[in-house]
Amino acid sequence: MSKKKSVRGMARKALTSIPFVQTPRKNTGLPPGTLVFTGNKKIEEAKVSICRYNAEKFVGEGLTLSDVYGAEAGIITWVDVRGLHEVELVEEIGRGFHIHPLILEDILDVSQRPKFEEYKEGYFCILRDYQFDPGKLEIRPEQVAIYVNTGQGFVVSFQEAESDLLKDVRSRLEMGKGKIRMRGADYLSYALMDRIVDNYFFLLDDMGVKLEDIENEVLASASSAIRKDIHKMKRELHGMRRSISPLREAINMMIKSEVAGITSTTAIYLRDLYDHTVQALDLTETFRENINSLNDLYLSELSFRMNKVMQVLTIVATIFIPLTFIVGVYGMNFDHMPELHWRYGYPVVWTIMMGCAILMLFYFRRRDWL
Amino acid sequence: MSKKKSVRGMARKALTSIPFVQTPRKNTGLPPGTLVFTGNKKIEEAKVSICRYNAEKFVGEGLTLSDVYGAEAGIITWVDVRGLHEVELVEEIGRGFHIHPLILEDILDVSQRPKFEEYKEGYFCILRDYQFDPGKLEIRPEQVAIYVNTGQGFVVSFQEAESDLLKDVRSRLEMGKGKIRMRGADYLSYALMDRIVDNYFFLLDDMGVKLEDIENEVLASASSAIRKDIHKMKRELHGMRRSISPLREAINMMIKSEVAGITSTTAIYLRDLYDHTVQALDLTETFRENINSLNDLYLSELSFRMNKVMQVLTIVATIFIPLTFIVGVYGMNFDHMPELHWRYGYPVVWTIMMGCAILMLFYFRRRDWL
Amino acid sequence: MSKKKSVRGMARKALTSIPFVQTPRKNTGLPPGTLVFTGNKKIEEAKVSICRYNAEKFVGEGLTLSDVYGAEAGIITWVDVRGLHEVELVEEIGRGFHIHPLILEDILDVSQRPKFEEYKEGYFCILRDYQFDPGKLEIRPEQVAIYVNTGQGFVVSFQEAESDLLKDVRSRLEMGKGKIRMRGADYLSYALMDRIVDNYFFLLDDMGVKLEDIENEVLASASSAIRKDIHKMKRELHGMRRSISPLREAINMMIKSEVAGITSTTAIYLRDLYDHTVQALDLTETFRENINSLNDLYLSELSFRMNKVMQVLTIVATIFIPLTFIVGVYGMNFDHMPELHWRYGYPVVWTIMMGCAILMLFYFRRRDWL
Amino acid sequence: MSKKKSVRGMARKALTSIPFVQTPRKNTGLPPGTLVFTGNKKIEEAKVSICRYNAEKFVGEGLTLSDVYGAEAGIITWVDVRGLHEVELVEEIGRGFHIHPLILEDILDVSQRPKFEEYKEGYFCILRDYQFDPGKLEIRPEQVAIYVNTGQGFVVSFQEAESDLLKDVRSRLEMGKGKIRMRGADYLSYALMDRIVDNYFFLLDDMGVKLEDIENEVLASASSAIRKDIHKMKRELHGMRRSISPLREAINMMIKSEVAGITSTTAIYLRDLYDHTVQALDLTETFRENINSLNDLYLSELSFRMNKVMQVLTIVATIFIPLTFIVGVYGMNFDHMPELHWRYGYPVVWTIMMGCAILMLFYFRRRDWL
Amino acid sequence: MSKKKSVRGMARKALTSIPFVQTPRKNTGLPPGTLVFTGNKKIEEAKVSICRYNAEKFVGEGLTLSDVYGAEAGIITWVDVRGLHEVELVEEIGRGFHIHPLILEDILDVSQRPKFEEYKEGYFCILRDYQFDPGKLEIRPEQVAIYVNTGQGFVVSFQEAESDLLKDVRSRLEMGKGKIRMRGADYLSYALMDRIVDNYFFLLDDMGVKLEDIENEVLASASSAIRKDIHKMKRELHGMRRSISPLREAINMMIKSEVAGITSTTAIYLRDLYDHTVQALDLTETFRENINSLNDLYLSELSFRMNKVMQVLTIVATIFIPLTFIVGVYGMNFDHMPELHWRYGYPVVWTIMMGCAILMLFYFRRRDWL
Repeated sequence: MSKKKSVRGMARKALTSIPFVQTPRKNTGLPPGTLVFTGNKKIEEAKVSICRYNAEKFVGEGLTLSDVYGAEAGIITWVDVRGLHEVELVEEIGRGFHIHPLILEDILDVSQRPKFEEYKEGYFCILRDYQFDPGKLEIRPEQVAIYVNTGQGFVVSFQEAESDLLKDVRSRLEMGKGKIRMRGADYLSYALMDRIVDNYFFLLDDMGVKLEDIENEVLASASSAIRKDIHKMKRELHGMRRSISPLREAINMMIKSEVAGITSTTAIYLRDLYDHTVQALDLTETFRENINSLNDLYLSELSFRMNKVMQVLTIVATIFIPLTFIVGVYGMNFDHMPELHWRYGYPVVWTIMMGCAILMLFYFRRRDWL
Repeated sequence: MSKKKSVRGMARKALTSIPFVQTPRKNTGLPPGTLVFTGNKKIEEAKVSICRYNAEKFVGEGLTLSDVYGAEAGIITWVDVRGLHEVELVEEIGRGFHIHPLILEDILDVSQRPKFEEYKEGYFCILRDYQFDPGKLEIRPEQVAIYVNTGQGFVVSFQEAESDLLKDVRSRLEMGKGKIRMRGADYLSYALMDRIVDNYFFLLDDMGVKLEDIENEVLASASSAIRKDIHKMKRELHGMRRSISPLREAINMMIKSEVAGITSTTAIYLRDLYDHTVQALDLTETFRENINSLNDLYLSELSFRMNKVMQVLTIVATIFIPLTFIVGVYGMNFDHMPELHWRYGYPVVWTIMMGCAILMLFYFRRRDWL
Repeated sequence: MSKKKSVRGMARKALTSIPFVQTPRKNTGLPPGTLVFTGNKKIEEAKVSICRYNAEKFVGEGLTLSDVYGAEAGIITWVDVRGLHEVELVEEIGRGFHIHPLILEDILDVSQRPKFEEYKEGYFCILRDYQFDPGKLEIRPEQVAIYVNTGQGFVVSFQEAESDLLKDVRSRLEMGKGKIRMRGADYLSYALMDRIVDNYFFLLDDMGVKLEDIENEVLASASSAIRKDIHKMKRELHGMRRSISPLREAINMMIKSEVAGITSTTAIYLRDLYDHTVQALDLTETFRENINSLNDLYLSELSFRMNKVMQVLTIVATIFIPLTFIVGVYGMNFDHMPELHWRYGYPVVWTIMMGCAILMLFYFRRRDWL
Repeated sequence: MSKKKSVRGMARKALTSIPFVQTPRKNTGLPPGTLVFTGNKKIEEAKVSICRYNAEKFVGEGLTLSDVYGAEAGIITWVDVRGLHEVELVEEIGRGFHIHPLILEDILDVSQRPKFEEYKEGYFCILRDYQFDPGKLEIRPEQVAIYVNTGQGFVVSFQEAESDLLKDVRSRLEMGKGKIRMRGADYLSYALMDRIVDNYFFLLDDMGVKLEDIENEVLASASSAIRKDIHKMKRELHGMRRSISPLREAINMMIKSEVAGITSTTAIYLRDLYDHTVQALDLTETFRENINSLNDLYLSELSFRMNKVMQVLTIVATIFIPLTFIVGVYGMNFDHMPELHWRYGYPVVWTIMMGCAILMLFYFRRRDWL
Repeated sequence: MSKKKSVRGMARKALTSIPFVQTPRKNTGLPPGTLVFTGNKKIEEAKVSICRYNAEKFVGEGLTLSDVYGAEAGIITWVDVRGLHEVELVEEIGRGFHIHPLILEDILDVSQRPKFEEYKEGYFCILRDYQFDPGKLEIRPEQVAIYVNTGQGFVVSFQEAESDLLKDVRSRLEMGKGKIRMRGADYLSYALMDRIVDNYFFLLDDMGVKLEDIENEVLASASSAIRKDIHKMKRELHGMRRSISPLREAINMMIKSEVAGITSTTAIYLRDLYDHTVQALDLTETFRENINSLNDLYLSELSFRMNKVMQVLTIVATIFIPLTFIVGVYGMNFDHMPELHWRYGYPVVWTIMMGCAILMLFYFRRRDWL
């Protein structure tokens, strides 16, 4: 067993440097339903932010989990959990809000594909947030899970790390900006998802900048490093697509969901979110085709330069090798070499050599090598 | 925040030089429904052209927005807005014609995919017009949004820049040419869309000419510049396809729409427009396959030339290097080299060298290198 | 406007040499329904052949258009128009047979995709005939439009040029061969389409022969010309596929058509025609994969030859460059070089050089370069 | 006409050496329903084997065609025709068993895609048998057509050549092995098809062996011949896929057929046959991906070897060209060259040259070229 | 026949070294329903483990096959067979549990695609377990067949070899861990399948590690061996995909199955299993795209290195070949060469040569070759 574990350790180490290769599932081989966190601990201590609101008031401080386990009519409760390595906390919240064990398992398994599942009491969805590191050309994915009990007005969101992403939504709630306070739990979950998808565009903008850099570098220098950048970029974009594509399906299912208690008003906004997701997917595809075309460009750049290098070599060698032969001839020590004794032998040889060289140059010019 | 903004600025700068990479969404991260113009200001001042007509009369001048906010039975009103950076103007028109805020947001977000949406009172569609710059090999997209209230006979079109494109339609209206004056708002919106799609063929013709130029240049010189042109052309054609493909779907939805109030007569014309869009998409695909094939041709051209260059080098080197060796031998200064003292040593060496050279030439001819 | 026209002229000129790039649509920008011929005038004067027949009799001469505008019970009328540049003629025929203006527009726009449209009174279909020029490796497409009024027994076919293609059908009609005289207008239209699709197989046979030639040439010489042939062949085959594929759909719609008045007997034959079209498409696909594989083969042929060339150069240079160095050493003029005065210095040097050369040859043989 | 024929002759000659390019359709241009054999005569004389059986008895000899044209209750009649060039024979059998002329045309046109067609009285299906020639890397397809009249218990099979393939089924019938004698005509037709599909696995095994050979050769020698083998293999596998894929569809239609009189017991076996066909298709796809990957491997092998060749050349040239320059310097005949008269000039030069060479070798070792 | 057999033997030998090329079907050509084991004997003696359990008790030892042929109400019987070469054993078990002969044939034919089939009494499914050998880069597939009689509570599993895989499930049963003892036969079969699919993630982790190794090696050395590793990896991943993809379909059919007696509770778990399978497929696809991108990277690495090698050669040759020519000139033995007698001829020549060399170096630096 210990041997297996060390192999697994290697795998994990290796895989974390491959973005989008989901971290190895530590729960593999265990009976289904066992709660195991499959990710890496990203923050020291798990944090829980709780707030309750309706159109009139917003309570954002001083609430504990046990305060909010019971529903209050017309009040929306949002519990935001950051840090999933404290499995007991997740388990407790699960019990408090009567979340199904299979959902809890999915929340803790941070290698899930984006998905939407509807239940009698509400729905559950998983999506991914990304951080792009333009230096290392790496995208760091982070799983966000949102559980919504539409009937009782509960929204519970789970993130792996301390992230500022959902703070915008909280401040909009606090300040009562927009219509978010008038709407139900379904609209809150939409707002959270919208915030995450919006972030994709920041990411894609950064990737677009990097892509532009790569294009310029390919045309300017075709250096060795750019080759690796192209490879990494391909990998990242592939990962993006693999993740946004199921998200689109999930949102589509969400719009069409009849059981989950999503109001038609929110559905209109979800349709807008769907459009944004399609747009992000479209942009990813465009980038993918661009990077593939850049790879072709890089390859033809290399071939083109090779041609240029070979032409230089060929021109120099083709001109001087025959001339070196000629001077070699008159460096021979034969007793009987009449030319050596001619009065104008030396200048004649020079003339012949010049003639050869000029002929060659003409030949190369005609071939467009000069 | 300011740091983030400067990064965004970079992104925008970078992206605008990548055609079809939609300009970064300035509204990212804002609550949904906020009206923000996401494009670049293309003209100094926004312009509004208003006209009203029915089969008998046409009023094209002297109308203000407030004159036309009320519907008149049997009269079609067309308001054409050019320049979207004046957000307040768009907002005011939105209020005047009771356009839904989400539609207004889409109108101002100029990075939308072509789409069609039907409403109780009418429909809304987005499409793209293109300008091709054969010199820079760039396609400049511009978003056109058309809002139609079929019941009240309102057509409101929104363009980013001052464009001559829709003037043709206006002059046809003015002169009463064709059946356009007899028909309703739905036919007018069809006429506008038809004008834009027709323009694609001009664009595709120009691209076809450029493609032909590239093909000729690949075969003639396979220069360095052509490589970049191929790359750009690929990118543009990919962008075209990405945009025409959803337009086709949008027109299809428009034909099948039951709520939007499109008459069956107009639907026949829309079917014709659908055919044109498919034809444009087909042509784009054909061009794409051609440019891919041209890339292959370019690569094999480079390989072929490299072969030719190497053959020249090899022939010259293979003939003269052994000869240079031979003359080197008789340039040695050994005391005892009997050949040097032979009477016919020098001509014998020449004969041997000639023989070698001729053998080599035969060998190369047999190998088809000469 | 005149500037625009000249650009268009260029486009047209350029595009006609790209097969399958449909000739620029001269009607672009005009109001829908305007009749404009978009092709190039291919014959001097338009010709009209008219015939009428039923199972008993066949009248093929002496009929004018005005004679046949009225239907006769049980009599089939076939009007074959060759040459579409005389727009008035087409317009007149359109009026005579009550053909819808949109159909007439499609007939004159020779850049249509193959399609089938059903109407109350009958149907209309467009397909393409091809001529293959093996010398130039060009396929010249020609549009054929067939309008059928099943109720009244009218078949009107429109071709761009004087073509022998449909003469076979006419002679079969005249001689009463087969069942063609017993059947209705729908069978006649089937017979015309069948004749055109049959012709694809002649074309594909010729292309197969050319493909075989290309394969042989790739393996034999991998010359420069073959590269361009591969590119052209790809382009042609792509064009073929783009055109046969919608034809298949059109025939499928024709079989399933319920309004158009196609009898179930003819439907059986149409199913046969559908099979042939699928077969032609299949063959086109097979050829496409073959030509792609031939392109790969050509590229690896080039690489392989480059390897061979480089091996020759390397062998020669690697053997003689060190030897030339050795003889150079003993060509130096130092006062104190003891070897030069040895009795057997010269033969010893020869022996060493031979040894080097033989060692090299062994090395190359071991590396399989010889 | 004679000119056309000779061209066609060329086409046929050319195409027969391209496997899967179906032989040119001699019936092209003829009225539909004309019976023409489109293949090449493969055996001298057509042969007909007739047998009749039920669970109790089997009569395999002494039957003539006219004996079996009439059905007998509970008796299955199997007529196996080998050799289709005797069109009259096929026509006669067609009349005897009341086979529709369009079916007869399909039987004689040996370039059909595999298909299944159901009729009131039974069904008709076409499939392909293959012979693989590992030496020439050619697959020789042969069309097998099976006509079944389920009501009357007739099975008529048509093969192009004398083949042992269906003898197994006959011997199983004769010996009463398995359940074949208890079942009806539909089971017999299944047994024939099963025998043919089973044969695909023999073929695919042989191709797998050849694929393995190619892989070994690519890694060992990357010779010129292997390049052509890869190309041929690609072509063959493509042809296989093109043919098995419609067969799968045909069998699927057969299973779902409601009119054709296929019993549910036989349908179970057909489902098994369907699984086998999918398996064969899967294997073909696997082989296709393998051969494509082998092509990539071959190309990188060539590039890798080129690198090695160039490294050898570069090492030798880079070491000896500067040395040759140095010895050349001291071969000059200037009157005033002090070094020449130094006591240790010669060994000093040798030392310098050795130093240069050793430095170079270090440099190459650091670059991993040695 | 014996000749055929030896060919088949070759095929088998060859194919077993191609992973995923299913071993040749020994049953090819035999009447359907004949029981033949198509795999290779992997263990000496077949083993059968039998256990019976319900929520209260677990009997795992001392049971013989004949003890468990009869069902007991509320008791689940699991028979696990390891080793399929003992065909009689499988036959006997088949008779004992009334398993249909066609199922038995599928169990013994170890080259089946994963599938699910439902029957009146229960269902049957086939899936694959894999062992990955990172050293040889080989995946060894092993077929697992599971037959379930839901009504009578029988689960019979068949494996080719002695494998520890299903022991986990047995120990969970024995120890009564999880809910497995409370559930029916359908849950047991789910648990077995879940265990196998879980194992895919171990395999994929190992492949991810290997992929990472390949990536590092490509960037570090681009050696010859890595080329073959890429090829093998491609083949393995392709094989994985070909097998997981039908498994996904099988599980989907299982979830939707209405006849097979799968309870809705188990169906929830099956949905989870379906998600895992999709995830595994996703990962396989990601790896496939990565390996393809690595192949591109390898090719451009080779081209890049070639460029570097050629630059070195060209720099050295271009500098020294002209210099060698110059020194050759003054090595000539003409009687009249005034320069030779100049006082400063020798240093002047050196100065000229230095100048040439420095110019060249400047030129190369400007071209970025140094």
